[in-house]
Amino acid sequence: MASSAPILLTPGPLTTSERTRAAMLTDWGSWDGSFNGLTASLCDKLVAIANGSGSHACVPLQGSGTFAVEAAVGTFVPRTGKMLVLVNGAYGKRLAKICEMLGRDHSVYETPEDVPTTPEAVDRLLAEDRAVTHVGLIHCETSTGILNPLPEIATVVARHGRRLIIDAMSSFGALPIDARAVPFEALIAASGKCLEGVPGMGFVLAREEALLAAEGNIASLALDLRDQHLYMQRTGQWRFTPPTHVVAALHEALLQYEDEGGLPARHARYARNCETLIAGMRRLGLRSFLPPEIQAPIIVTFHAPRDGRYRFADFYQAVRAKGFILYPGKLTQVETFRVGCIGAVEPTDMERAVEAVAETFRELRIETL
Amino acid sequence: MASSAPILLTPGPLTTSERTRAAMLTDWGSWDGSFNGLTASLCDKLVAIANGSGSHACVPLQGSGTFAVEAAVGTFVPRTGKMLVLVNGAYGKRLAKICEMLGRDHSVYETPEDVPTTPEAVDRLLAEDRAVTHVGLIHCETSTGILNPLPEIATVVARHGRRLIIDAMSSFGALPIDARAVPFEALIAASGKCLEGVPGMGFVLAREEALLAAEGNIASLALDLRDQHLYMQRTGQWRFTPPTHVVAALHEALLQYEDEGGLPARHARYARNCETLIAGMRRLGLRSFLPPEIQAPIIVTFHAPRDGRYRFADFYQAVRAKGFILYPGKLTQVETFRVGCIGAVEPTDMERAVEAVAETFRELRIETL
Ligand SMILES: Cc1ncc(COP(=O)(O)O)c(C=O)c1O
Ligand SMILES: Cc1ncc(COP(=O)(O)O)c(C=O)c1O
Repeated sequence: MASSAPILLTPGPLTTSERTRAAMLTDWGSWDGSFNGLTASLCDKLVAIANGSGSHACVPLQGSGTFAVEAAVGTFVPRTGKMLVLVNGAYGKRLAKICEMLGRDHSVYETPEDVPTTPEAVDRLLAEDRAVTHVGLIHCETSTGILNPLPEIATVVARHGRRLIIDAMSSFGALPIDARAVPFEALIAASGKCLEGVPGMGFVLAREEALLAAEGNIASLALDLRDQHLYMQRTGQWRFTPPTHVVAALHEALLQYEDEGGLPARHARYARNCETLIAGMRRLGLRSFLPPEIQAPIIVTFHAPRDGRYRFADFYQAVRAKGFILYPGKLTQVETFRVGCIGAVEPTDMERAVEAVAETFRELRIETL
Repeated sequence: MASSAPILLTPGPLTTSERTRAAMLTDWGSWDGSFNGLTASLCDKLVAIANGSGSHACVPLQGSGTFAVEAAVGTFVPRTGKMLVLVNGAYGKRLAKICEMLGRDHSVYETPEDVPTTPEAVDRLLAEDRAVTHVGLIHCETSTGILNPLPEIATVVARHGRRLIIDAMSSFGALPIDARAVPFEALIAASGKCLEGVPGMGFVLAREEALLAAEGNIASLALDLRDQHLYMQRTGQWRFTPPTHVVAALHEALLQYEDEGGLPARHARYARNCETLIAGMRRLGLRSFLPPEIQAPIIVTFHAPRDGRYRFADFYQAVRAKGFILYPGKLTQVETFRVGCIGAVEPTDMERAVEAVAETFRELRIETL
């Protein structure tokens, strides 16, 4: 059953290892010491990945990644604050929408989907608008796979004395982020991305003082990260029923992450996946949307074939029948599709995926060259 | 590994069947048609349990049960509305706290923890306060196990032209709730309780018109049930990454629920668990906190032994070592502990649990008689 399932080449949920899934075969009591130990170990490992041990805390949160993003905005941005949201894709737009829904003043700086935000632009924007207290950045904008220059932007934000909130959902664990070198107020990620757990929880890394100072900001019980943190510190437990099996799976995935060699090894495997994929697709005549310098090794956007016989739905089904699940494009102007490089997959899987795409084109008589 | 894990006699997470856990051994693409089919089937089954097919929609939500409660309050109670919260335990208090955090006007009617809210009281309160638009009721108040008279209260609320929000977290699937006979605006429950799934998602059953009318109420993106519903109707997909493995486990648990004989059979098994437990504990000299008429067959609160040698932590560990995880009491005035009757457990498990408690008392030299 498990082995015959198609391989997910999507930005999450993704293909996980059998060992990670097997960790969900045990039921855990959420009040039990053994589960508290699991949560504590999980948080320690997550903080260590960002080199934040001693300075930063990890606050896990039930729900999908978006829940953790909203929790971070609501918890850290005061009601009288203002966020500058840096947008070059759908997740940046979603961050702005969250500010709007929470009633937080914000401004949006948008660049085209193939143009990273520059530190120079941020410098200018912060000089111009003294009201801005926080800057919101999407590290890898998953809607295309573009990488924004996080360390440089973080330095500028810190120099201006403003605070940075990083949506690192699709990069955390694979692309280096060093809390000692990259100042941030909060960094958000989730279980089911580059750490190769299953979806069902997010987490926020934040400085302890920032968490304590966040009192009274958020108009929510469920999404209050400060309250979650203080309760966890006091009791070792989650405030509300944790997704026990998701937690156990993520913990098991992190043990395998360490076995693999941590971030450098994970990064290297994804980079090989990405290169193999792009080279293979190029042989089929398919161009990737982003130039290599700004392509994160997470997910690749490809231009769809120009051939009038191409329709994404048919293409998707035919590739799926060969064992691979691809992802639709998210661009409005050009017809694209996306292929993820993350999950428990290897370059050989990417080669087989390219082969499945090639066969599909032959079957559907789609010309690409 | 799975089989040596202790049996959870807690109000969730609880002991699930091997078949339910095995459903988590497959990875699902959240954009894939097969997963959309799973979600649709899940929602149909959940609506059918409340006899709401045709009239009511099911809106699933990522996160724990509390997230779904907050989502329901925020989505359905207008910013100018007012909720009367009926409290006789911790979850009623939490509902009031949610109103406070969301900035929704509310009043609290509290009875002692062993006294159900009466329909007469609700009738009087609604006659007295014309500003109340919504009434919030905890069906089974899990902090003691007390059952509140839902059908009678629902009738009174409807007669006054007000709207009822039911927290049926720990009763849904085991205690009958018929949407044709019990008028409600929204009913909230979760995956990891009487349906015997794993924790990680909640859901809200609501009338379609109520969902449509809820535009502009909630100041949240993640918890907006109307938006989740409309998106799901349009695309068949969740707005944000679903907890795919939790969804698959709940779906598998629902198939077993149907095999077992649906609600009547589930109710009967839990009732036998509850009787077996109470009778066994009585033989050991332990009294349950609630009189039988108001004891829901979900979780039982027991008075702790009077013996000065009793300490919950030691008692818990000793019973755990014998294979059973109990739950602490939640009462402030009296020393109690709780034992759940729900999950993939049978009367024979309850007998073995009673035997484990008896042995523990002998070991710790605790007198109960
Ligand atoms: C950069 C980024 N931010 C936010 C999200 C939202 O996460 P979720 O779908 O888990 O809510 C995603 C999901 O892919 C993402 O890639
Ligand atoms: C009646 C009731 N309401 C709300 C909740 C909260 O659910 P969760 O812990 O999943 O947030 C519970 C949990 O046991 C409950 O029993």
